[in-house]
Parts: sequence; C-alpha cells; structure tokens
Amino acid sequence: MPAAPTEAIERARRVRLMLFDVDGVLTDGRLWYSAQGEALKAFSARDGHGMKLLAAAGVRLALLSGRSSPAVALRAAELGIDLVLQGIADKRAAFDALLAQLALEPAAAGFMGDELVDLPVLRRCGFACAPGEAPELVRQHAHYVARAAAGGGAVREVCEFVLRAQGRLDGALEAYLQ
Amino acid sequence: MPAAPTEAIERARRVRLMLFDVDGVLTDGRLWYSAQGEALKAFSARDGHGMKLLAAAGVRLALLSGRSSPAVALRAAELGIDLVLQGIADKRAAFDALLAQLALEPAAAGFMGDELVDLPVLRRCGFACAPGEAPELVRQHAHYVARAAAGGGAVREVCEFVLRAQGRLDGALEAYLQ
Amino acid sequence: MPAAPTEAIERARRVRLMLFDVDGVLTDGRLWYSAQGEALKAFSARDGHGMKLLAAAGVRLALLSGRSSPAVALRAAELGIDLVLQGIADKRAAFDALLAQLALEPAAAGFMGDELVDLPVLRRCGFACAPGEAPELVRQHAHYVARAAAGGGAVREVCEFVLRAQGRLDGALEAYLQ
Amino acid sequence: MPAAPTEAIERARRVRLMLFDVDGVLTDGRLWYSAQGEALKAFSARDGHGMKLLAAAGVRLALLSGRSSPAVALRAAELGIDLVLQGIADKRAAFDALLAQLALEPAAAGFMGDELVDLPVLRRCGFACAPGEAPELVRQHAHYVARAAAGGGAVREVCEFVLRAQGRLDGALEAYLQ
Repeated sequence: MPAAPTEAIERARRVRLMLFDVDGVLTDGRLWYSAQGEALKAFSARDGHGMKLLAAAGVRLALLSGRSSPAVALRAAELGIDLVLQGIADKRAAFDALLAQLALEPAAAGFMGDELVDLPVLRRCGFACAPGEAPELVRQHAHYVARAAAGGGAVREVCEFVLRAQGRLDGALEAYLQ
Repeated sequence: MPAAPTEAIERARRVRLMLFDVDGVLTDGRLWYSAQGEALKAFSARDGHGMKLLAAAGVRLALLSGRSSPAVALRAAELGIDLVLQGIADKRAAFDALLAQLALEPAAAGFMGDELVDLPVLRRCGFACAPGEAPELVRQHAHYVARAAAGGGAVREVCEFVLRAQGRLDGALEAYLQ
Repeated sequence: MPAAPTEAIERARRVRLMLFDVDGVLTDGRLWYSAQGEALKAFSARDGHGMKLLAAAGVRLALLSGRSSPAVALRAAELGIDLVLQGIADKRAAFDALLAQLALEPAAAGFMGDELVDLPVLRRCGFACAPGEAPELVRQHAHYVARAAAGGGAVREVCEFVLRAQGRLDGALEAYLQ
Repeated sequence: MPAAPTEAIERARRVRLMLFDVDGVLTDGRLWYSAQGEALKAFSARDGHGMKLLAAAGVRLALLSGRSSPAVALRAAELGIDLVLQGIADKRAAFDALLAQLALEPAAAGFMGDELVDLPVLRRCGFACAPGEAPELVRQHAHYVARAAAGGGAVREVCEFVLRAQGRLDGALEAYLQ
C-alpha cells in the first residue's frame, strides 16, 4: 500500500543510494526495434536534470535493468552515473551485492521500478517508488507513486521528492536564482 | 457486441492458443518509414512481460500479421514466440491452417485484432479481443475490448485476463512475492 | 466555418479525387531529424486501410506536400497512390494543374490540410477537411473537422465519411463480414 | 509570477529578438539515444511555420541550448535561423554577449525556456516564456506560459502571441487568404 506522506518523507530522508529501473521508468516502456534489434531508447531531459540535482546533493545513483542496451550506458555516462547494472536476471541478488559493496543498509537505498520482476527489490529497499502506470500489484508495494508519466518526468519527481525530504531542494535551486 | 463479462471469462478459460495481430495491437499502429522503407516498430515492455507470463502458464502464443518486418521476427524470437505468421493476405486461411497443424478447435484459440481485415478470424475464434481504439465495427465482434491502449498495455491486459479466467494469475505472480 | 453536417455530406458525395497534405495530416506534424537531416515519418496503419477502402470504391487519391521526403514516396507507392506532389511551394497552382490534367471541376476534389499554406486549396476545393489540431483560422475554412488526431486516424475518418456520404461504406465493409 | 495579460502583451510588443531553448521547448524533452549516442530530435512542423511568420515580420530568431546536436543545426538552417548557440554551459553569459553583438537591450529580447538552467536568462530578458509542462519554479518566472505542449505547438503559440501583440498577425495571415 502506498505509504502515508509522512512515512514516504521519512523513508526518503534516509536515502543515500537511489536506483532506477530503465524500461518503463526512465523510458515510457516502449521498445524500439529495427531490423537489427533494439535500436533506440527515449529518455527525458527533465529526468536527467533531476538526477544531476540529486547526485550534486550527495546521493549516489544507480541503474538496475533486466535488459541490456548500449544506449543506456551512453546516457548513464553522460549523466555521470557510474553504477550501471544491465542484463540482470536476478535483481534481488544484484541489489544485495551492490549494498554489500557500498556498505549500505537496505534502509539507505531507494528503488523505482514498474514491473513484477522489480517486486523483490521494491520490497527490500527502504524507499520503494513506482510510476503511476505500473500494475496495481506493483503500486501496492510502493511507498511513493509518481504522478508524472514514466519517461516524462516520473524520475524527476522522485529526485525532487528525495531532495525536499532531505531539506536540500531549496539549496539545489538557489544557484539558479542568483 | 462485446460479451457479457461472464461470457468473456468462460471463453478465455478455454484458450490454449492466443494469437495477436501486430500493427495496432502490439504497436500503436504507427508505421515508421525512413528513406529505405519501414524502419522501426515500437513494442511495449509491459506487453512482453504479459506474454511471457501467459506462455509460462502453458498457453501457446502466435503472431498473425498482414505486413512483414524483420523487427517483428526479432521481437518474437526474444519473447520465445515460435509461431510467427507475417505477410498474410488471407488471415482466415492462415488461422484455419494453424489450427489444423496444432490439432485445435476454434474454441481453443483467442485472437486480438484491430482492423477490418481481422474480422474473419475474430468471428471464427473462441475468444475475440480488440483494443479500445479499434473501429466500432471491429469492437462489435470482440468478446473483450481492452481499456489499455494498443502498444501501451492492451496485450498485457488480455494476457492477465486469460490468466485470471484460467485461475492461474495468482500462481504466476507468486514467484515475485517471495 | 465548419459546414452543417448535411452540407458536408452533400459536398463529400461529389468527391472523385481526394488530396491529402502530409505533415500534420498523414502524420502528427512531428519532423524527425538525425545528423543527416529529416530521417523518419510516422504514418498510421489505420489511415492506410482507410485510403485503400476509398481507392477501391473508385475515388482517386493524391498527396500534396510543401516538404519532400523519400519516406512519403515509399508509403504512397505501398498504398498504390500514384499522384504524389511533393516539394510544392505554390499548392494552389499545383492543385489547379492537377484538376486540369484530370479534367475535373474543383467541386469534384476534396483536400485535407492543417496549415495556413493549405488555405488557398482548402478554399477552392469542393470538400475542405482539417484535423482538430489545425489552427482556428484553418478550421474555419473546413467543411469537415476530424475528431481523430492527425497521424492517428484523422485521414481514416475522412475516408469513411466520404464512403458513407457516397453510400459505399456498407459495400466496402461487406467483404470482411462474409 | 505569470504576467497579467496586458503586461505580457506590452512586453511582447517590444521584442526584436526571440530566443528559444531546444529540448523541452522546440521538442517535448525526449532524448533519443541509439548505440552511437543521441540520434534523433523531433521538431514540430507547426512551430516551424510560426517561426517563419515571426521572422518574416522582422523579429530576429535565435536558439540557445545547453546540449549540442547536428540535428538542431540542420533544422535551424532549414528555417533560416542563423543565430544558433549550442553547447552553452552558461546561458546568461551567452545571452549577454548576443545582446551586445546585436546592440539590443534586454527588454528587446524574449526567451522561451523550460528548465532551472534557463532561469538566469528568463529573469533578465524582457519577455519570458515557458511551456505549461515546465516546473512550477520556472513557470513562476515566465510572463507567458503556453497552453500547447512543448514540441507540439508551444513555440507556434508564442510566435503568434508576439505577432498579435505587435499588430502584425493579420498582415502575416492575409497572404494566405487571397
């Protein structure tokens, strides 16, 4: 069940690492195929700005995807995301290994996913997020359900939510208001 | 006329083979042309997960398309669909031949289509489905009309409907809730 | 001002040649550029079926576009449209020349356009159509404004309107209901 | 805070140079990546017509983007825009330099942007515009917020607003009504 706002804020406050699924979260879930296989991914410029704000405030970012695509690696590199886990069949095992590697507790990790395969990580992490288009069964396990569409601002919304919960949104915006 | 819910459930319960049209069903009906001809197809990641759930529950999947595109063959291969009928001018004849080959009655076959050329198969199969954007004349002959958009979850919705009708949805989801 | 329904039907009844603009009519108006220039056009499969029904009923089809793209030529060829006028700076002159070539009066020609540059032809042809997204000034001069979106069924809607006005829609559909 | 209509009109009346951000203003903010990096930009044909009307009425046009893409340069060239500033990290400095180069006061310049990085220029220019999808913080600083979507008519709307404010819209349209 989606968390009461205060619970979601409390959970977001503890986040030191934020993971995002790719298809259906950083994109709208469309897979673009040419005669050579998957050819394109459509990311949101606004999501990119949000992730950069969050990283600048000291939260580590990671991508965790069941599929694998060079377009994702390029976009991640451009955004300065160095934790990119693609082609992951068992997301729970990858999540546990990443936490161990970074010496973090699950409560310090947030994850945004939209599918059944994301449930094991959504149920283990401290701050579980889903886009509004996710199946009901997935949304039930999210502490925060974004109003903006996946691939069209849902990730930006989560980044701003975490920044606000941590009292760092105003500071992040200040630089642009001088 | 769309079937009463109980009739649609009854029909979905008997499905052993589920066929899908491609353009306007597995995609939103947009045809992307470059200077070399048709260049891209946009599939839904959520539809893919739904088809994999349905196949894992023992229902055979097939694609039945009037057009022909290597992108479709690649996506089908990725999803483990080995019955791919493309470039089919006479869908009824292809449908009859497929049933004969698999030794199935029409009542054991479902089909989702969105166009006039799909009507002959929609009217013969046991469980006829259409996306909500299909023309009125097509929707009239569907036992189930999806609420989700074609290329954006309509196929996923049908897959879950069949799984639920066959009492296999909870089992399919259980693996993700452990 | 949009024509009263009966006037639009009367005008559609006389159509022997139907012309369509491309960008914003057969597409949603998005122009897709790569590093090599315009790279893709997105057509609607449903529009294609509609144009084939209209042509099968004996109405000539033509495309009339200010821009020029090999993707348009390929799509037109696939649909059997042999009157393709691209790169046309003066649409009125091209329209007049086409009518002369086919020995048709303006009242026998319909045109669907969405932009100011389409106004001269919209104001001369017998049956002027526009998508709902066209600017107010263009819609004012249309006898029929489509409800479906450009690139997502607006052309199909016009094709069916003309077929119905000419009493040929039922005949066109009958083949699919046997 | 969005300007009262009369203030926005007054500000638009003084515009001699109109600048547009690219991603999220001339496009819907989607970034299309292939295995080779950013591959496509989707522009609006209607925006293009609007920019051509504005330029024909004597207003200089410029693009001001933090990113850099050959697709943008090609589209700008096609529209006759010769002031194209891409890859600009400090938009304020680029804006000031452009004004100096053209010997214009800030009050004579309009700018449409959608992101935090656009705020410094939005706050300095005489006529600040934003698409409706821009974050609240950006919209607060706009004198005019477009109703049409970015990449789907927002720029056209601004161009027509400026033409109308300057009393030149009717003249611009007249040519199409002869």
